[in-house]
Amino acid sequence: MAGKYNICLDIGGTKVLGAIFDKNREIVYRLKKKTKEGGDSKENVEEVIISVVAEMLEASGIKKKDISAIAAGAPGVIDSAKGIVLFSPNLPWRDYDIKTPIEKKFGVPFFIGNDVNVGVLGEFKYGAARGYKNVVGFFPGTGMGGGLILDGKLFTGNQFKAAEYGHMILEPEGPLCGCGQRGCLEALSSKQGMSAYIREQTARGRESMMKESVQGGVFKSKILKKALAAKDTVAMEAVDRACHYLAIATGNMINTISPDIVVYGGGVIEACGEIFLEKILKEVDRYCMPSIRSTVELKIAELGDDSNIYGALAMIEGK
Amino acid sequence: MAGKYNICLDIGGTKVLGAIFDKNREIVYRLKKKTKEGGDSKENVEEVIISVVAEMLEASGIKKKDISAIAAGAPGVIDSAKGIVLFSPNLPWRDYDIKTPIEKKFGVPFFIGNDVNVGVLGEFKYGAARGYKNVVGFFPGTGMGGGLILDGKLFTGNQFKAAEYGHMILEPEGPLCGCGQRGCLEALSSKQGMSAYIREQTARGRESMMKESVQGGVFKSKILKKALAAKDTVAMEAVDRACHYLAIATGNMINTISPDIVVYGGGVIEACGEIFLEKILKEVDRYCMPSIRSTVELKIAELGDDSNIYGALAMIEGK
Repeated sequence: MAGKYNICLDIGGTKVLGAIFDKNREIVYRLKKKTKEGGDSKENVEEVIISVVAEMLEASGIKKKDISAIAAGAPGVIDSAKGIVLFSPNLPWRDYDIKTPIEKKFGVPFFIGNDVNVGVLGEFKYGAARGYKNVVGFFPGTGMGGGLILDGKLFTGNQFKAAEYGHMILEPEGPLCGCGQRGCLEALSSKQGMSAYIREQTARGRESMMKESVQGGVFKSKILKKALAAKDTVAMEAVDRACHYLAIATGNMINTISPDIVVYGGGVIEACGEIFLEKILKEVDRYCMPSIRSTVELKIAELGDDSNIYGALAMIEGK
Repeated sequence: MAGKYNICLDIGGTKVLGAIFDKNREIVYRLKKKTKEGGDSKENVEEVIISVVAEMLEASGIKKKDISAIAAGAPGVIDSAKGIVLFSPNLPWRDYDIKTPIEKKFGVPFFIGNDVNVGVLGEFKYGAARGYKNVVGFFPGTGMGGGLILDGKLFTGNQFKAAEYGHMILEPEGPLCGCGQRGCLEALSSKQGMSAYIREQTARGRESMMKESVQGGVFKSKILKKALAAKDTVAMEAVDRACHYLAIATGNMINTISPDIVVYGGGVIEACGEIFLEKILKEVDRYCMPSIRSTVELKIAELGDDSNIYGALAMIEGK
């Protein structure tokens, strides 16, 4: 591969995180920029992406001709063969070709995939799931992302829509999910699910230091970490419930895939992963077949907030 | 491939079904033999297999030297690379090498795989799922078998244990399953689940023509067909409940895999497939994401009781 550097991006609903990797896979420059809240317009997000890349090049002194490729993870259903964002709940893009303008601007190949798929790919190539063949990833955040590595390859199913087991129904009459279904894993175990629980309990007059942080939205993972450290009862209940359903969903996915490893990543896990893993490990054996359980490991992601940009690097190196 | 004929077997808990295929994939001879109930001993099942093959050869006049290979589907966890039955709930085999004695006896290669995996492979190569790439199979019978074709290949996961989504938990506090968990799909939607429901309801004094047929075991699929034709209320309730949970499990698998097609097969479906499919189709849209649902078809298996022996043929042809 020509050039010496690769540029990797983590495109979120409110920010773009960029990193320049050298040929030894070391990050030599980083930049984070906010987009307007909720992405605002198609052009805005595209402009921010372009300015992140351009500013990183300028500030680092690395020349455009020394860049091999650019790659990104972004939320939504993404046709990674064509570089088109088909649909995204958090970006103002629908059937949007983001590949063409980026390639035109920088003159190098651009690759893009679903953020959690890319994050799991990162963990598979350079993180907690290195050396395994079949990997199931659970990335709880505001929602509940999933990613599957099967027979050593990212599995995306028909039209890049696979791994939405965040919407696996575990309680047919359970709480309403953002997707319109009831009792999805996401409605039970994501920040949305935990926030709803804390909101309900504090509305009943119960005390919690997280009361303010769940008004009108979801808490920040760091606040959950503080509340758990302070043994906030309502926060602990929310986590117990989230982990109970994560254990059931993990059991279901173990039975379905017989993976070598299940990896937990994303913001909540980055902040409180040890607590979550301990609780899940306590329960998971009840929810899957012992013979299948016996050959699967459960681990916390190693790359933390960088799993996406490492996954983007894996996309480039896999081409 | 040398020879002109292939011998394919469907090994069950109480019978061995054999078929000889000619080079045009036509079945030129069939034979079914009972094993002692529950398989009895390792030697007994092996003897029955050998006698089915030997008797078919003798009766058809086809010579051993004109056989290319023998293949079989059998219940349980099967190391299909080595031809070893690791564990089977319905056969007296554990870590049992069935490949060596068969190959020694007949002098041709022998292949074996999990019966439902093999059945789904049959539907994928020669039946309802021909031409698709990602296939999810649900085979309700006494239990609830599963089989996955992913990216055009049978997916078996770590140590051949994948596709046990019959034990996906849908009601964490639901009825006890044979596997020891509560609320598995199998406990809700298989013949065991439906039989338990009918047993409970008739024990309450409700009338059902299936009352006798569920005493001490599971009903035969033909009796269910008759009861549905006669509009037996309790039987219809049992089927409604089974299909409700099959629809949820189908939705969960659609969200997880984004398959091209979901195929329903096995004994119950062979007898009452149209009724089951209609009920599942009425509900499934509620339980998966509309964008993923929009690109998946739901179909009944085409090969009926022969899906296993066609799948065995597919194993031979795939080698």
